Amino acid sequence: MKAVIYNGDSKIAVEDRPKPMILEPTDAIIKVVHTTICGTDLHILQGHVPTCIPGRVLGHEGVGLVQSLGPAVRNFTVGQMVLISCITSCGMCHYCRRKMPSQCESGGWILGNKIDGTQAEYVRIPHAPFSLHVLPESIDRKVAVTLSDTVPTSYECGILNGEIKPGSSVAIIGTGPIGLMILQMAKNLFGPSMTAVIGRGIPRLETAKSMGADHTFSIIEGHDAVMSSALAATKDRGFDVVIEAVGTPESFEIAQGLVGAGGTIASLGVFGESCKLHLEKLWSRNICLRTRLIDAITTPDLLKMVEAGGIDPKFLVSHSFTFDDIHNAYEAFEASSKHGALKVVVTMPDLVMNGSS
Amino acid sequence: MKAVIYNGDSKIAVEDRPKPMILEPTDAIIKVVHTTICGTDLHILQGHVPTCIPGRVLGHEGVGLVQSLGPAVRNFTVGQMVLISCITSCGMCHYCRRKMPSQCESGGWILGNKIDGTQAEYVRIPHAPFSLHVLPESIDRKVAVTLSDTVPTSYECGILNGEIKPGSSVAIIGTGPIGLMILQMAKNLFGPSMTAVIGRGIPRLETAKSMGADHTFSIIEGHDAVMSSALAATKDRGFDVVIEAVGTPESFEIAQGLVGAGGTIASLGVFGESCKLHLEKLWSRNICLRTRLIDAITTPDLLKMVEAGGIDPKFLVSHSFTFDDIHNAYEAFEASSKHGALKVVVTMPDLVMNGSS
Repeated sequence: MKAVIYNGDSKIAVEDRPKPMILEPTDAIIKVVHTTICGTDLHILQGHVPTCIPGRVLGHEGVGLVQSLGPAVRNFTVGQMVLISCITSCGMCHYCRRKMPSQCESGGWILGNKIDGTQAEYVRIPHAPFSLHVLPESIDRKVAVTLSDTVPTSYECGILNGEIKPGSSVAIIGTGPIGLMILQMAKNLFGPSMTAVIGRGIPRLETAKSMGADHTFSIIEGHDAVMSSALAATKDRGFDVVIEAVGTPESFEIAQGLVGAGGTIASLGVFGESCKLHLEKLWSRNICLRTRLIDAITTPDLLKMVEAGGIDPKFLVSHSFTFDDIHNAYEAFEASSKHGALKVVVTMPDLVMNGSS
Repeated sequence: MKAVIYNGDSKIAVEDRPKPMILEPTDAIIKVVHTTICGTDLHILQGHVPTCIPGRVLGHEGVGLVQSLGPAVRNFTVGQMVLISCITSCGMCHYCRRKMPSQCESGGWILGNKIDGTQAEYVRIPHAPFSLHVLPESIDRKVAVTLSDTVPTSYECGILNGEIKPGSSVAIIGTGPIGLMILQMAKNLFGPSMTAVIGRGIPRLETAKSMGADHTFSIIEGHDAVMSSALAATKDRGFDVVIEAVGTPESFEIAQGLVGAGGTIASLGVFGESCKLHLEKLWSRNICLRTRLIDAITTPDLLKMVEAGGIDPKFLVSHSFTFDDIHNAYEAFEASSKHGALKVVVTMPDLVMNGSS
């Protein structure tokens, strides 16, 4: 089969690999229909994910058809269209029982990281009973790819960790797929009193505006100008909820400056370094800071919410490529500011030919 | 009247001052019976509290008799014995309505800071309807002084912010009055599965042990040794709850190293500087960090809990002094490691003479 291989030194290549086989009774083999590229794949290329060694098949997102099942997998049948969760969950360990599959002792984020992933014609999914979801007919298959990671990350690490309540004032830092998805969820699900989005490029901020953001601010205007304008929108009280979806010391600094007394910061950036925490100011301000790696425990709920129309991640699918063209897909995603790419959906070639997309 | 005056340059003096008068309809004048000294008073002496200027009467804790009331104070009567909350609360502003009197727009921690305080024969209490509590007969008056600040701070900033649940593993960093009070509350109220106390001096750690701490560790043993021993007590998973009751970058570093995936850090130290936050490790660990200045909104509940015997802050009253001897009280509290002082209760002289303590 064809697969995208990480070869170190920021390089990927499409190579021939043996088709994966059932190794454990709880395994499933999935024939991939659509996959996509995540910001984390780019982190891997940059050499920032030491657990992912050269030779690995990349990818932790996708939808596909169940091709074969280990004897212990009773909740799926061959031929079903399934969503592959980016989080592999044994369902039984200390952390899974505490509803934290992100920390699963034999799972977590392992696909396209510690084991071969979804940017291939076939993928082996360990702990299949807890790591796949039957995909409802009514959800577009390409859109469904965003439910592997982007949508549940936005919901769990942003919305739930931010503790948004109806009437909250909400600041979102970052205008990537996750920042924009969080904006839609905040608006659709909670009726915030005010939303502000802080980003860099004007086109993305205009998208945020068109999605209903009450205020948008570009850090090109300068840190101090953004802070004073954004705080003025809260009568200088600061925001009830600040969602930090960038992951740099600079964006974390902005988050701390925007949070109001009694407010919550949801930090969902993938940080490569430590940050300065201004406890000399925040110790007396009754603030809460939450971090989280996606647990994907809300995926069943999110599938229902998409079916019901409460949220609609369709806008995330900005570009489509065939698997043969995956180098261009990587290029478009990497240079997203040039191409305006949010999520680039990649379709396997035989499925393009027979039209079953 | 006699009052303890902050004179700058680490100096205090007992001076004669005019007796305070009712200035606003919501004021009360309280004849102080007992007061005490807080770590924050020492911060003032060290010049770390810029809002407290020389000439100020110190003190934000105490019990006393209602001497006179403004016409708008309907929930107290002259002659009642009352507890003075360290937090002054208007009850009406944006923050008070959100149950955050710590941030009250015309109150918060102002006593012995922005206005004259309780280390005097009389004190004016603004916003009296929300800032005083009737003291039940059954609670010892000297012990009651700990309910002005120490006990509600331990409960709100430590216990509630730490989100302790029955079965939690709990680490407490710091063996001052607040650290030890938190230990008692955690043991008495929540049935934790395990408690560990990290401190410096052996006598205080022995006190923690005698109060039921399962493990005690002295940082004199070295940072690495303490971390590995403490984590070993959790099978290297880390603690569900870490309560940081010191307030230095070093203690905050320990807190981050001890918290387990899905755990909560309650930070209640008074920080004078920023700290390093290890988001490069914690971003994916589903942790929660909370700060808080005491709101004193649980004081009515805590009074009932003391009456019912669920908690007993009596052990905190380690030393008693008369007001004439307040220099020695400050000295004993400042050199607490030498004197073993937890809280030093100071009694007004005429009340010592006529025995109404």
